[in-house]
Amino acid sequence: MNIRIYNVRILTMEAGKGIFRGEVWVKGDTIAYAGPVILDSKEKWDQEIDGRGNLLMPGFKNAHTHSAMTFLRSHADDMKLDEWLNTRVFPAEAKLTGEDIYWLNKLAIMEYLTSGITSVFDMYLNKPAAERTVKDTGYRMVICESINDFGGTIQEVEEDYHRYNQDPDRRISYQLGFHAEYTTSRELMEGLSGLSEKYKIPVYVHCSETKKEVEDCRTRTGMTPVAYMDSLGLFAHGGGLFHGVHMDEGDFDIIKKRGLYVVTNPASNLKLASGIAPVKRYLDMGIPVAIGTDGPASNNCLDMFREMFLTTGLQKAVCDDPEAVPAMEVLKMAAVNGAYAMGLPECDTLAEGKKADMILIDLQQPNMQPLQNIEKNLVYSGSKQNVKMTMVGGRVLYQDGNYYLDSSKEEIFARANESARRILG
Amino acid sequence: MNIRIYNVRILTMEAGKGIFRGEVWVKGDTIAYAGPVILDSKEKWDQEIDGRGNLLMPGFKNAHTHSAMTFLRSHADDMKLDEWLNTRVFPAEAKLTGEDIYWLNKLAIMEYLTSGITSVFDMYLNKPAAERTVKDTGYRMVICESINDFGGTIQEVEEDYHRYNQDPDRRISYQLGFHAEYTTSRELMEGLSGLSEKYKIPVYVHCSETKKEVEDCRTRTGMTPVAYMDSLGLFAHGGGLFHGVHMDEGDFDIIKKRGLYVVTNPASNLKLASGIAPVKRYLDMGIPVAIGTDGPASNNCLDMFREMFLTTGLQKAVCDDPEAVPAMEVLKMAAVNGAYAMGLPECDTLAEGKKADMILIDLQQPNMQPLQNIEKNLVYSGSKQNVKMTMVGGRVLYQDGNYYLDSSKEEIFARANESARRILG
Repeated sequence: MNIRIYNVRILTMEAGKGIFRGEVWVKGDTIAYAGPVILDSKEKWDQEIDGRGNLLMPGFKNAHTHSAMTFLRSHADDMKLDEWLNTRVFPAEAKLTGEDIYWLNKLAIMEYLTSGITSVFDMYLNKPAAERTVKDTGYRMVICESINDFGGTIQEVEEDYHRYNQDPDRRISYQLGFHAEYTTSRELMEGLSGLSEKYKIPVYVHCSETKKEVEDCRTRTGMTPVAYMDSLGLFAHGGGLFHGVHMDEGDFDIIKKRGLYVVTNPASNLKLASGIAPVKRYLDMGIPVAIGTDGPASNNCLDMFREMFLTTGLQKAVCDDPEAVPAMEVLKMAAVNGAYAMGLPECDTLAEGKKADMILIDLQQPNMQPLQNIEKNLVYSGSKQNVKMTMVGGRVLYQDGNYYLDSSKEEIFARANESARRILG
Repeated sequence: MNIRIYNVRILTMEAGKGIFRGEVWVKGDTIAYAGPVILDSKEKWDQEIDGRGNLLMPGFKNAHTHSAMTFLRSHADDMKLDEWLNTRVFPAEAKLTGEDIYWLNKLAIMEYLTSGITSVFDMYLNKPAAERTVKDTGYRMVICESINDFGGTIQEVEEDYHRYNQDPDRRISYQLGFHAEYTTSRELMEGLSGLSEKYKIPVYVHCSETKKEVEDCRTRTGMTPVAYMDSLGLFAHGGGLFHGVHMDEGDFDIIKKRGLYVVTNPASNLKLASGIAPVKRYLDMGIPVAIGTDGPASNNCLDMFREMFLTTGLQKAVCDDPEAVPAMEVLKMAAVNGAYAMGLPECDTLAEGKKADMILIDLQQPNMQPLQNIEKNLVYSGSKQNVKMTMVGGRVLYQDGNYYLDSSKEEIFARANESARRILG
């Protein structure tokens, strides 16, 4: 499909470009042009979208989630992370089939689309189900390996690394990772370290989410999780830490030196009483931060607007500094940094040659008026209500409240409710 | 108009009633029936609304806002409260006309409607503009008096108390109040105290929003703002405190003894780096809490879903207690307590004889699925996107993204942008 979007304000997220009026051409899954109006073009279009009154920008990247946990939404709230994981999450997950995960992923994708999220860094069970979801829906997912002591071998990880990195369209791809230091043996971590070295690839992991996790690791190893994992060579080729809430001085230095990304998940960290990540400190040190929703079991929603407001709002309050983490910095985390964090540099900005992962923001809503500063409006007062269209890889998957997926909304809801009922009773 | 809403799940917010399926009858501005399905009714309806798949509940009450500050949205962010007030807000407000305020109020009302807010406790300049807005739009506003050293006399306040409490429909009403201890002379506060005593009426005020405010008051008076204002007799007939972030032990006792409401404004307190109010402590002491958005200049949006998540999420993190402030408690604050806080007991629940201020929540959206616990879904994953219909005083003012006001969306946006441009340049 060749699509032209015209009459529109454009925020490319390229440094220094600001917002300008113009048009964007999409050919196949790629942006063919993004710039001022072109008169007298001879191009033929399959679809033309009038963007009058709206803003076109790169989609948001959800840099840490567990999509299929939609079945646990509002099932187990108001509990501490470790109790929640051990008494509620793990027993329920043991009953999940690949078919469940396929439909629960689709439910999550619907919600991502409503929030302008065009790709996710998904850490969950059953990679074939993720691959099938992506193939059928047209969505873009990066699988984050989540091996741990409860399942998986280094050999399987190596096979998966090859298997899931063969999609020429990069709608499915794969990054090396593991669940967490506290669920993974030293032997396994050393194996992963070996793979990272063999292929010169980054490693991603849940890290320092709770105080208890850090204290337990210190008791066992004499080191913080960051220092201990670094001592095993896991970060020699970069990577990223999910959550990154409780850090000591040495940790900041390691993160900086290894060029790690930190993916902050502020809503989940509040709801599970895990704490508030030192995002301003990361930024002051030049450590790149991306944003994730975490899974819908802990958050409980998949809304990048909520996360963006929290990412700046919490820092302002905690640092007693209303200038902390300005709006444009937050937009960069959500739209650009997330792409790099999950290994999708071709999805960072709205520019020629990049993947056509874009969203149309409805500015003709009261929360966007008056139009004094659109970037600030997006971060401080934006909501799902403003997402008019979400395009992934050149395909419109959501527009004006309608979903353009291979299954109907009704079928996805019915299947997700069936799975939840069967598993949770 | 007589309206019947049928085929719908109903959450009346009456204690112990839970959610049931049934129908609701509206006659004029009042709820005539809310209960199980009635077969073979002979009633004639002007309009029947099929609520299949949705939830009907009382609207949210925004218990502290400054509606017409919409013109300052995204104009002055990232500043401390006192600098922000003195260098940005006050100089801009000096240029506002009644006509500006009328249109800026309408812009705010549009946004309230998208967020399911059916009444607001509005503290702002120019009461005639507020009255005119309410008359023309059909919305419900309670004016909170905001007298201070920069304008107003006790005699005018007394006149306004009578003038704005005459609407038989109670779409406009008036409560005694003043801006804040730090902007109001002792003489004026004593005058207000006298009026409160004369009419046995409550008093509302911004209170203990920032640390500096409390420290300055201690320096001047030797007391906290709560203790000082109480010593002047201001709370002898109850009332409420907006913000209530920085409290000492004695303050909690005074608030409890006087039966004061605390109206929490979590997003504004984060954004202005004012702090996090001790909401869990208030609840533990049995102090009733309501929720406000504060004005769009500090928040920057008017979204009760954001405030509800923050009201519980922040307490969980700050108190290191994921069980703090459960979802149903938050819903009660937003829908019920707010009504009492602003003197609208006839708007608290969805029951026969109450005002027909109701909202229809779209459960057929991915963030509400699966339907395991609807109350939790509302608080932890709800968004403006779920507001399908907002009814105030028996009139549908918003439905399926369309506004049913006396002016068009385009006109309101144009007028608001004109005002902002003229005043801010």
